[in-house]
Amino acid sequence: METTRFRLALVQLFVERRRHINLERARSLINRAAKDGAQVVVLPEYFTCMMDPEYFVEYKETRNGPTCQMLARAAHENNVYLFGGTFPEEIPGSKMLNNTCQIFNPKGDVIGTFRKLHLFDVDLGERMKITESELNMGGPGLTTVDTEFCRTGFGVCLDLRYPELARLYAMRGCQLMTYMGGFSLTTGPAHLQLLQRARAVDNQMFVANVGPATNNESPYVTYGHSAVADPWGNLIAETGSDEDVVIADIDLSLVAETRRRMPIDSLRRNDLFETRDLKIKQD
Amino acid sequence: METTRFRLALVQLFVERRRHINLERARSLINRAAKDGAQVVVLPEYFTCMMDPEYFVEYKETRNGPTCQMLARAAHENNVYLFGGTFPEEIPGSKMLNNTCQIFNPKGDVIGTFRKLHLFDVDLGERMKITESELNMGGPGLTTVDTEFCRTGFGVCLDLRYPELARLYAMRGCQLMTYMGGFSLTTGPAHLQLLQRARAVDNQMFVANVGPATNNESPYVTYGHSAVADPWGNLIAETGSDEDVVIADIDLSLVAETRRRMPIDSLRRNDLFETRDLKIKQD
Repeated sequence: METTRFRLALVQLFVERRRHINLERARSLINRAAKDGAQVVVLPEYFTCMMDPEYFVEYKETRNGPTCQMLARAAHENNVYLFGGTFPEEIPGSKMLNNTCQIFNPKGDVIGTFRKLHLFDVDLGERMKITESELNMGGPGLTTVDTEFCRTGFGVCLDLRYPELARLYAMRGCQLMTYMGGFSLTTGPAHLQLLQRARAVDNQMFVANVGPATNNESPYVTYGHSAVADPWGNLIAETGSDEDVVIADIDLSLVAETRRRMPIDSLRRNDLFETRDLKIKQD
Repeated sequence: METTRFRLALVQLFVERRRHINLERARSLINRAAKDGAQVVVLPEYFTCMMDPEYFVEYKETRNGPTCQMLARAAHENNVYLFGGTFPEEIPGSKMLNNTCQIFNPKGDVIGTFRKLHLFDVDLGERMKITESELNMGGPGLTTVDTEFCRTGFGVCLDLRYPELARLYAMRGCQLMTYMGGFSLTTGPAHLQLLQRARAVDNQMFVANVGPATNNESPYVTYGHSAVADPWGNLIAETGSDEDVVIADIDLSLVAETRRRMPIDSLRRNDLFETRDLKIKQD
């Protein structure tokens, strides 16, 4: 039977230099979230190391490495679904990496893998010229996972900038989008919650985003401000820049109710345009 | 030679019961905008009559009626491009109407017609159960117009809720989206500027929206808050609920500059999804 309410926790981790410290602290905050009643726990983008090519190379690992081992145990011990943030994943036979999220059920089994799709190649001034594609590969496609609560879709950071992606996930039946995005101090205040809320309103779904806490010692300083938007675009939970666990009680009946009252999807002019999912066979 | 700067004016008209008063006041505010240096003037959705089926039927007219005659004269007399808001347009041989915008150049010639695409059939509570499709037909498609300043795309009210539409206009080369949308006191505070800014950020273009001023005597009370967002999502001009002329100086170089610094479009995963314009021949 479908449960229409569940408790979601976003772990806005303070990510420091050393991976083992980050993993320990992440585990401790997963425990805390579970004690607070969370049934689904989400970690942020690059929670194992600071965001910089130097650290990505130093701390790259496989999906059998220490990070995913810790995550599997933490999911099982705490009996939670764990959307395990991202880590720099080695690609066998290549110098390139993926920005990868492993997703676990409460038994600690892997139920999905998502790899960041859109790479951040930008020139936002002296300290913000970034060419992610030099070291990273874009992932192969969308990932959905089903829990007993709802179907969830995934995106990482720049993926939030593409409204098509949230729409495709809605078309695939998702009621929750989970982004793990560490926006910068430039783009965060300008765009993060704006785009998060817009994706929620456009698709009348819940949209969560979790990023690392602000660490001014990091080569790339993230904005934090992890939050959950409801299908009307209201932020039902949010935090600031510091390390925190954000708890949101998700009432999935709001998705159907919002769509019933304003049926955006069925009013859409499908004779004029369409969003095509090129990985799903079309008619 | 392309001019990269121009002055845009949004006429947030207070719309009352009588059409001839509305036309007179609109004309006077177009004059005022031109005196303030505006080169492009935009009127709001349904500026000829209050928003209600009773008034739409009473004041329906053709594109040769008093409204468009006034608009052509006002454009010519003031030497401005005039994006002429919308009026209830008769459809010959039908009881149905369109929600129609006529677009004029500074000579007073018609250079485009746009008809609202998405119809507002919603149930937002006792006073907000609206079935626009009972009386209105959706328009045939997108409309762009070229001025010496830039290419502009059009949408009305609910059209703002479809990110695909703004994207299609961007794909057609528009640097400015002009929405004429009278959002309600329910949806306005919740969604109007949020979606307007998100469309601007997603497509890195200027996005204007103009609605009628708040008139508490109207059957459908509009929110006002006409504004212009720049390609970074900042509101560079905005107003409150009362009648006003909003002036924005548009620097089109910001479009190219924003796209150069963060090339969202070229980073898009075109192998995974596409937005198809079904009215343009595809490869």
